[in-house]
Amino acid sequence: MSKIVTLGEIMLRLSPEGYDRFSQAKQFNAFYGGSEANVAVSLANFGKEVSYITKLPANAIAQCAINELRKYGVLTNDIVRGGERIGLYFCENGESQRPAKLVYDRKDSAIAKAKREDFDWDKIFEGAEWFHFSGITPALSEECAKITLDAVKSAKKKGLTVSIDLNYRENLWDATTFSKSIRELLQYCDVALGSMEEAEMAIGEGIGEDCNTVLKKFVEKFGLKYATIILRNRFTAEDVDWTAVLYDGKDFYNAKKYDIHVVDNIGGGDAFAASLIYAITSKLSNQEIIEFATAGSCLKYSMNGDVNLSTVEEVETLMNGDGSGKVSR
Amino acid sequence: MSKIVTLGEIMLRLSPEGYDRFSQAKQFNAFYGGSEANVAVSLANFGKEVSYITKLPANAIAQCAINELRKYGVLTNDIVRGGERIGLYFCENGESQRPAKLVYDRKDSAIAKAKREDFDWDKIFEGAEWFHFSGITPALSEECAKITLDAVKSAKKKGLTVSIDLNYRENLWDATTFSKSIRELLQYCDVALGSMEEAEMAIGEGIGEDCNTVLKKFVEKFGLKYATIILRNRFTAEDVDWTAVLYDGKDFYNAKKYDIHVVDNIGGGDAFAASLIYAITSKLSNQEIIEFATAGSCLKYSMNGDVNLSTVEEVETLMNGDGSGKVSR
Amino acid sequence: MSKIVTLGEIMLRLSPEGYDRFSQAKQFNAFYGGSEANVAVSLANFGKEVSYITKLPANAIAQCAINELRKYGVLTNDIVRGGERIGLYFCENGESQRPAKLVYDRKDSAIAKAKREDFDWDKIFEGAEWFHFSGITPALSEECAKITLDAVKSAKKKGLTVSIDLNYRENLWDATTFSKSIRELLQYCDVALGSMEEAEMAIGEGIGEDCNTVLKKFVEKFGLKYATIILRNRFTAEDVDWTAVLYDGKDFYNAKKYDIHVVDNIGGGDAFAASLIYAITSKLSNQEIIEFATAGSCLKYSMNGDVNLSTVEEVETLMNGDGSGKVSR
Amino acid sequence: MSKIVTLGEIMLRLSPEGYDRFSQAKQFNAFYGGSEANVAVSLANFGKEVSYITKLPANAIAQCAINELRKYGVLTNDIVRGGERIGLYFCENGESQRPAKLVYDRKDSAIAKAKREDFDWDKIFEGAEWFHFSGITPALSEECAKITLDAVKSAKKKGLTVSIDLNYRENLWDATTFSKSIRELLQYCDVALGSMEEAEMAIGEGIGEDCNTVLKKFVEKFGLKYATIILRNRFTAEDVDWTAVLYDGKDFYNAKKYDIHVVDNIGGGDAFAASLIYAITSKLSNQEIIEFATAGSCLKYSMNGDVNLSTVEEVETLMNGDGSGKVSR
Amino acid sequence: MSKIVTLGEIMLRLSPEGYDRFSQAKQFNAFYGGSEANVAVSLANFGKEVSYITKLPANAIAQCAINELRKYGVLTNDIVRGGERIGLYFCENGESQRPAKLVYDRKDSAIAKAKREDFDWDKIFEGAEWFHFSGITPALSEECAKITLDAVKSAKKKGLTVSIDLNYRENLWDATTFSKSIRELLQYCDVALGSMEEAEMAIGEGIGEDCNTVLKKFVEKFGLKYATIILRNRFTAEDVDWTAVLYDGKDFYNAKKYDIHVVDNIGGGDAFAASLIYAITSKLSNQEIIEFATAGSCLKYSMNGDVNLSTVEEVETLMNGDGSGKVSR
Amino acid sequence: MSKIVTLGEIMLRLSPEGYDRFSQAKQFNAFYGGSEANVAVSLANFGKEVSYITKLPANAIAQCAINELRKYGVLTNDIVRGGERIGLYFCENGESQRPAKLVYDRKDSAIAKAKREDFDWDKIFEGAEWFHFSGITPALSEECAKITLDAVKSAKKKGLTVSIDLNYRENLWDATTFSKSIRELLQYCDVALGSMEEAEMAIGEGIGEDCNTVLKKFVEKFGLKYATIILRNRFTAEDVDWTAVLYDGKDFYNAKKYDIHVVDNIGGGDAFAASLIYAITSKLSNQEIIEFATAGSCLKYSMNGDVNLSTVEEVETLMNGDGSGKVSR
Repeated sequence: MSKIVTLGEIMLRLSPEGYDRFSQAKQFNAFYGGSEANVAVSLANFGKEVSYITKLPANAIAQCAINELRKYGVLTNDIVRGGERIGLYFCENGESQRPAKLVYDRKDSAIAKAKREDFDWDKIFEGAEWFHFSGITPALSEECAKITLDAVKSAKKKGLTVSIDLNYRENLWDATTFSKSIRELLQYCDVALGSMEEAEMAIGEGIGEDCNTVLKKFVEKFGLKYATIILRNRFTAEDVDWTAVLYDGKDFYNAKKYDIHVVDNIGGGDAFAASLIYAITSKLSNQEIIEFATAGSCLKYSMNGDVNLSTVEEVETLMNGDGSGKVSR
Repeated sequence: MSKIVTLGEIMLRLSPEGYDRFSQAKQFNAFYGGSEANVAVSLANFGKEVSYITKLPANAIAQCAINELRKYGVLTNDIVRGGERIGLYFCENGESQRPAKLVYDRKDSAIAKAKREDFDWDKIFEGAEWFHFSGITPALSEECAKITLDAVKSAKKKGLTVSIDLNYRENLWDATTFSKSIRELLQYCDVALGSMEEAEMAIGEGIGEDCNTVLKKFVEKFGLKYATIILRNRFTAEDVDWTAVLYDGKDFYNAKKYDIHVVDNIGGGDAFAASLIYAITSKLSNQEIIEFATAGSCLKYSMNGDVNLSTVEEVETLMNGDGSGKVSR
Repeated sequence: MSKIVTLGEIMLRLSPEGYDRFSQAKQFNAFYGGSEANVAVSLANFGKEVSYITKLPANAIAQCAINELRKYGVLTNDIVRGGERIGLYFCENGESQRPAKLVYDRKDSAIAKAKREDFDWDKIFEGAEWFHFSGITPALSEECAKITLDAVKSAKKKGLTVSIDLNYRENLWDATTFSKSIRELLQYCDVALGSMEEAEMAIGEGIGEDCNTVLKKFVEKFGLKYATIILRNRFTAEDVDWTAVLYDGKDFYNAKKYDIHVVDNIGGGDAFAASLIYAITSKLSNQEIIEFATAGSCLKYSMNGDVNLSTVEEVETLMNGDGSGKVSR
Repeated sequence: MSKIVTLGEIMLRLSPEGYDRFSQAKQFNAFYGGSEANVAVSLANFGKEVSYITKLPANAIAQCAINELRKYGVLTNDIVRGGERIGLYFCENGESQRPAKLVYDRKDSAIAKAKREDFDWDKIFEGAEWFHFSGITPALSEECAKITLDAVKSAKKKGLTVSIDLNYRENLWDATTFSKSIRELLQYCDVALGSMEEAEMAIGEGIGEDCNTVLKKFVEKFGLKYATIILRNRFTAEDVDWTAVLYDGKDFYNAKKYDIHVVDNIGGGDAFAASLIYAITSKLSNQEIIEFATAGSCLKYSMNGDVNLSTVEEVETLMNGDGSGKVSR
Repeated sequence: MSKIVTLGEIMLRLSPEGYDRFSQAKQFNAFYGGSEANVAVSLANFGKEVSYITKLPANAIAQCAINELRKYGVLTNDIVRGGERIGLYFCENGESQRPAKLVYDRKDSAIAKAKREDFDWDKIFEGAEWFHFSGITPALSEECAKITLDAVKSAKKKGLTVSIDLNYRENLWDATTFSKSIRELLQYCDVALGSMEEAEMAIGEGIGEDCNTVLKKFVEKFGLKYATIILRNRFTAEDVDWTAVLYDGKDFYNAKKYDIHVVDNIGGGDAFAASLIYAITSKLSNQEIIEFATAGSCLKYSMNGDVNLSTVEEVETLMNGDGSGKVSR
Repeated sequence: MSKIVTLGEIMLRLSPEGYDRFSQAKQFNAFYGGSEANVAVSLANFGKEVSYITKLPANAIAQCAINELRKYGVLTNDIVRGGERIGLYFCENGESQRPAKLVYDRKDSAIAKAKREDFDWDKIFEGAEWFHFSGITPALSEECAKITLDAVKSAKKKGLTVSIDLNYRENLWDATTFSKSIRELLQYCDVALGSMEEAEMAIGEGIGEDCNTVLKKFVEKFGLKYATIILRNRFTAEDVDWTAVLYDGKDFYNAKKYDIHVVDNIGGGDAFAASLIYAITSKLSNQEIIEFATAGSCLKYSMNGDVNLSTVEEVETLMNGDGSGKVSR
């Protein structure tokens, strides 16, 4: 089995219990997550060998983040220790017409202030077959943009498959810089995923085209092997529907659509990325790939926290048609 | 900014966690609320200066109720301390076909046994522009009915706008006494709100007319400036739809209707009253008033406890059409 | 009032809080239940005198199970103490497309290793009018199958009404043994309940017939006084609809159908059995019997844990048409 | 085995978790207890047949109190249902130099407003050998004083042993009325227990005599069979030492003294009373009686809540000298 | 009543429950505190009018800090809103030989990055009689040192009494800078408190003198009206003894010494400062002042969180000799 | 760095919160531990490479045990999956004179039913320098005794240092079998630790000799390189003192004695074993070895759960004399 490597920021997330608002909380639930860390944990839960790369301070709270990754089997040996703080954010769950509320406090985190020389990509990619990152990583700082570029170049050179989750965050950068930066990185990518809006921002042309047209342009523009677009309709804080389309440069593959009752809105896209990578590296057929990715991420929405704790068997059960939640006994 | 004054009873509410029934509870969640106290807290959250009037014993539990009001910025200096007990009730949350269950223990509370001379309305209304109360306050005791009458008369004399939430409680008084008592109080009111049934009880004529007819009669009979009727359909303990109509003596204004997944059934009407008062005192247009009042109270249903913890910005976001619960990040 | 007796296994159930998965749990909620114990507790909550029969070790955890039964008024004096362990299982709640997950650890429990001579049925059935058990009890061990047969024979001889909940569990026995064993026991039964599939297994003929045909064959084959079939459609882990049909050898009685938001999927059938027994022993009409049984079990789904904590009044309120969850105050 | 009967008030106790003060509590732990109810539960845990007598309203919270008694095997069939409320109190745990803090809200409870005709003592005492009450019961109301007198007279007439825990509460009555009322009741008692101060109040003479002198006077004045005095030194909210002396009219028996780290200060005396009654009714020797009573109540201090959950074996282990808390494994 | 003003940083403190270590925590308890905020809350609990000055960002978490202050009656109107983040720290409770463990993340908080022009001292000190700060405030940033100097100068000019808690923190500044900065501020102070080591650092001479000598030098060097030194011996994480000496330029006043079982080690000195200020502004005698300050801070150690929730009556009870933790009932 | 290998049983431990008794628990805290697993986790926390060997079923609860090991960095790749159940036990914390109470349910666990051929010791010991086990492992079953013998023989042959914690458990085997079995295993051991009683059982001669004599005989009889005896006095469930003596065949080394306030009584000996192994493999001096082992295990007692979460730095701080629990800030 070859290793998958992901690079990004892992943060401490502090959430009031249940439907409580911040001002009602006497305690905050602690989760540790971040887009690429979530991908790593999900892949480990699927049985893949996966190494997570970031920089974290040498203190006891950052150690908790590492413990959480290790708990699920993620390799953490190549995480760089140093810097002053782990980024964090506060997240109040939404419900019905009330949206989730996020207060970010991630500035000047160890990874945001990391230096290019902190990472030895040759060593990190030893024995690896895949590298994954999201659009958040290059947005953390100018140096992080360079670190990400170092990583994709090195990965490409060493023959790894490179995947990107576009993951545009308006709090982290403006649309123009995003498009420019992402376009450079996409040169080195084989697999890309995102929403319609994100794909259009990456392509940089008109807006409002249909999904297949966008996918086609996307694949052609960047010479991708696979591109997928997630189609999500959000009705309230707890009701979404969720499906996706895969394009391999030749054909379009549509997944089943799920009507989801959301327990936790964080990490759906990350679960999709992980399921997609699992499915591709496990040599599933194209139709199976998009079904596995969609079913896998559907299940994430039913779980607390950032990460998808599903096993391959659980995803397959749903993918093969049983979404009835029947108890086996 | 002028002060808003509300008068009523604040109780300790004891609720089992989540869906637990009383007999399963090892702990009770403690909330402090009451119709007019809930209005006060919501108005304080909207940034208004608001003073809450009641009588509470000089013990540590009543102090907790005061602390909870202060926490959200409500002025509590004019609360009278004395008497023997704070009223309380036990409330088991409902779910699906199972209704919420309430066990009241509010008899002989400090406010129910308060005397007219406990309250110096001239002093209380200094610097105030608005006085609000609900039909519960005069129902607490014969003396409370007199205290309420003292208050509305004084308020009227001092030129305050007076609002009433009809709030008929069959556990507190019979329909005939309610109608008689409320009718006397309505003489001094400018703004009134309630359900169809409550408005019809106040008017004292036939039952079963349409909403606009009732509103018209209501406004005319009592010379109101504004009357609103809340239209709620309850399907199960967690599913309601919710809208309202405002009548200003000339035109009818209908609000958007919300399909709500209910977290906590207590305090929806109080949130409506607070949002209505905020919207009127903030000089919104009539259509905006009813939209703000409806959206504001819709959000309450998604929160634990008696009070609406929404900010003006959160209500405006929903009122302006985004009820999708989308996370901003 | 005459006594109702039930026989079975009570287990410790360990469940993560809320939607947490096993790997996220720092604590497990402890429930004590089992099909026939659940029936006993529900009947006690309905005000019936009910005695529960099982074997439990003489340790502090088994004592907790007995305490839980006593708490709700179930008679536990005839429970045999001895053996080494109380059976247990781990149960992770499901949500949306994610099913509940059960890990059983019930092997070699005290009741599974009990001996026929542990139970003195003459003494146990003193003053009793009804004996109830489910298809799980004879499946626990070969000796348990004999114990169950002893019980039904003794009950029959002493003139008790005997009821069976078919309750096929594929983890406990294969379909052929189940059919054979159950058929023998059904000889001694007056009242039987189950799903379509279970009734068909008991009858042992073709599959896929309509409900009424199955009921007719079922009653005729075993000379039953009453047979009921529960009709459940499961859409997701939290959405089921639920109704039932009663056949008395002459007429079919259909209950109202409920669309249920499920809090806890364990114990719905047990709540149905208890409500059915209550309704029959309370001499309700046939239509009332099936309505009471269906409404009673509908309410169970809104509660945490294995047991139905409804009172007769609560079931009657729902049965008489108020499923709106309206708070009375 | 003959039945023991106790009479008194059971209350809902609401306590913040751990060391939290009232103003920090988001939840209150719910305990159900009262002096004589605590005695009943402890005796049931010791394997005695015990019936608890009180009056409780027919609501769901009072039912929780009954459930808690039943859970431990106390007979509750003779509890009268009616009246409006269950008494309650709030109790904040103390620690170090900070004392526990109690806020009582027990006025007008169902038992305080009970009538003499509510209780049929002939029926209640059927099959009983012992009646126990404390000085709190007659203090609840004038009618309760009469009810208690009815009870002791009836018990005496029927040949039961009668025991009293003096339990003077300055919040419930003044010293003079206490002394007068208790003296009348003591005419009918065989066994009495209390502190030095309480015994002196009952005797009604000088203060400040030594323990044995007080015991001697106490036994002689009221013709008691056994009197015990508990000797407690309290150093801080969590540190007490605890021993007791028994006098049987002839000899004095001193128990071992325990240095106790207190988990919960409520119910030590009640645990002593229960252990004393157990030891006497189990025909232990006089020295064993006072050792069992002292060891049994020592253990109570290590438990949360009002009641002693010790078994006979656990008390015997401590009484026989092993207070080292060694784990057996 | 005249107002007391305190200036400093309030932080979010995140602590695992009970004795859990960081790596065991699934939740963090949230407290809001800081040296001068703790003083403000304690003074408000003593019934004083007190205004807290700081700068906090305009987000929902900072609002929680303000809510916590308001809950206890602290005036928060003069708090400046702006900046990016509220400082925070993680605090693991210690026990026995294991010390508490702190991980600070307070850099670049709103107050640390505040500007001198953010604060209008003339307006802030309107109606005030006392200004208090600690050695932490000037250590937050160079600008904060200037802000503190502005404050003391303005306070002095307006005739306020100025008090300082030396509060040296080795994480915030080196000993030399501390001494220099504190010495300048002490010119404007009337009342000072600290440990032996801190007083010696402020004086800037030899180390190892006896307490009275240090106090004498301290008062003389800075022309103080009152100086107090806290004498604490720490034996383990949960065992300290605690007393203090007051010097008024003429006489030395020694307080009673307390052997304390520590619940929470944070905030003892702040509780001392608040009790001292209360006692001085309430015109107690010098002996009473030091007894009140010592007893008040002793009680703090028995409470969770940073702040002293004692009332004046509770402190007086202890100060007058009852530290036995006896429950009054 | 060379690997340390430990072999044993890891169980799920279920404990009521705080001081609650089993019958009060609505939830059980879940810990995963066992003597040798605890040693492994502590060594991993000290930064050692350590692999834990056991057999666990392929279910979700056993996976939680593995996750817990991985969380702290223990290598779990060589754990054999299979069998039916993970062993478990219920543990009620003791307090004051009340001892902790354990209910074991570990029979027929996967490891107890494991076969010799499940383990490939050549592969397991690849790259290892040390093998550790306790007297519990061979007691699990006759096959486990053989597995343990296989392991020590293989370890010896491959040149590993072998250590044994005698750990006699009277619930698992009788004294005679223990002595016989342990004596055989001790032939292959280099380092041994235990209590006086355990060492005497292993030696098999007279009882009641002094510690040094026992140590001397122990080392001589089995040709040990190091033997240590832990000297513990237990006063109550929360008070123990704790020290130890090391003998290297030439000299005796006594450690400092600690008076400990116990949070959790499980795992003290395991923490000692881990600290001892750390100290020896880190080439500390003999005096440092025994001080490190004693200080490391002292700290364990202040933590919830079975395992020592101390870092090397924390142990060194205590070992170097600072047990005052002073907060560094």
